[in-house]
Amino acid sequence: MPRGIFVSFEGSEGCGKSTQIRLLAERLKSAGREVLLTREPGGTEIGEQLRHLLQFSKAGHTMTPETELLLFTASRAQLVREVIVPALTAGTIVLADRFLDSTTVYQGVARKLDPAEVAAINRFAVGGTLPDITFVLDLDPTIARERMRHRAAPAGAPDRMESQPAAFFDAVRAGYLALARDNADRVRLLDAAISVENLSARIWQELAPRLTP
Amino acid sequence: MPRGIFVSFEGSEGCGKSTQIRLLAERLKSAGREVLLTREPGGTEIGEQLRHLLQFSKAGHTMTPETELLLFTASRAQLVREVIVPALTAGTIVLADRFLDSTTVYQGVARKLDPAEVAAINRFAVGGTLPDITFVLDLDPTIARERMRHRAAPAGAPDRMESQPAAFFDAVRAGYLALARDNADRVRLLDAAISVENLSARIWQELAPRLTP
Repeated sequence: MPRGIFVSFEGSEGCGKSTQIRLLAERLKSAGREVLLTREPGGTEIGEQLRHLLQFSKAGHTMTPETELLLFTASRAQLVREVIVPALTAGTIVLADRFLDSTTVYQGVARKLDPAEVAAINRFAVGGTLPDITFVLDLDPTIARERMRHRAAPAGAPDRMESQPAAFFDAVRAGYLALARDNADRVRLLDAAISVENLSARIWQELAPRLTP
Repeated sequence: MPRGIFVSFEGSEGCGKSTQIRLLAERLKSAGREVLLTREPGGTEIGEQLRHLLQFSKAGHTMTPETELLLFTASRAQLVREVIVPALTAGTIVLADRFLDSTTVYQGVARKLDPAEVAAINRFAVGGTLPDITFVLDLDPTIARERMRHRAAPAGAPDRMESQPAAFFDAVRAGYLALARDNADRVRLLDAAISVENLSARIWQELAPRLTP
């Protein structure tokens, strides 16, 4: 049984990750491949409890940035060992809606935590399990915000992204561009302003050569 | 208002930490000082939820060592910033029943995680808030186990310490001895085999000169 492929998707909200993950999963399943989708935080019983805690506490503004980082990475540490590694070992293709790069970019930008410390904790949490390939869907923040505006927010949820200043989205985008530049062997930077179909084709083009028949 | 004093107590189970903390707190209160006791994990709303999660998951043996470490340190990160730092700023004396040294010793010994990584995450979590003085209550594991045997376990709780092999207790003790040796400026190693009264007197002797009148 050949090892599966670990694919992560990154980018700012509104960049189209969810749509592309869905399309890729359908295509892989049609090709007869086992596919597993993951989201963060969550994906395990412990992770779902942490997801609840993170959402609950964020609302009260009581959680410190350091606590938040440690809980995100705790959820990821559990997900990697309980779900992702066993799936890859069984030959499954894992499609992750965000992984450690989100922590690098968002915690660095939004919480201004020390990048070296964030990197060290990220490494500890994933223990060497990195994506084989990471797609960063790059989109002008003005377009991303426009897309978000047309998206229905979950009932009762405040539109957190809308409440962020434009500088935040610019900084997230810059963070992802730097990530792609510094990890060229793993990260593919894709223009997410093109059509859904064309973007899906670009992703398939990158991934297809990696699929063993 | 002079800053309070941050005192932590460390040592294997059965070493007498709880008794000594209680005696010291009483003496400090009699001297008119404000005292705050902390325990880990817990001490904040977020920390208590993590305590519950740690206890619940340990029972099921599902939690990975990395997740456990990140949750312990997440609880501590919150406790430091929400409780300990404000208390010290207000002039309160904080008595901590375990702090970051427990992570160093126990995670290193029991989980065999990389000491450098544990140290880095410990530092990140406490953000420079270290105890002014740490008392390590050192006790021969045979005596400690004997004391534990006479202690009533909480209803329904398995006696986790009893189930550990003797080598575990020896390793914990060695870990604390190394900690005291490597942090001689902060850590006081005390023989916990002496009487409760004499040990209490030794602790007071160390602490009294630090109390501003």
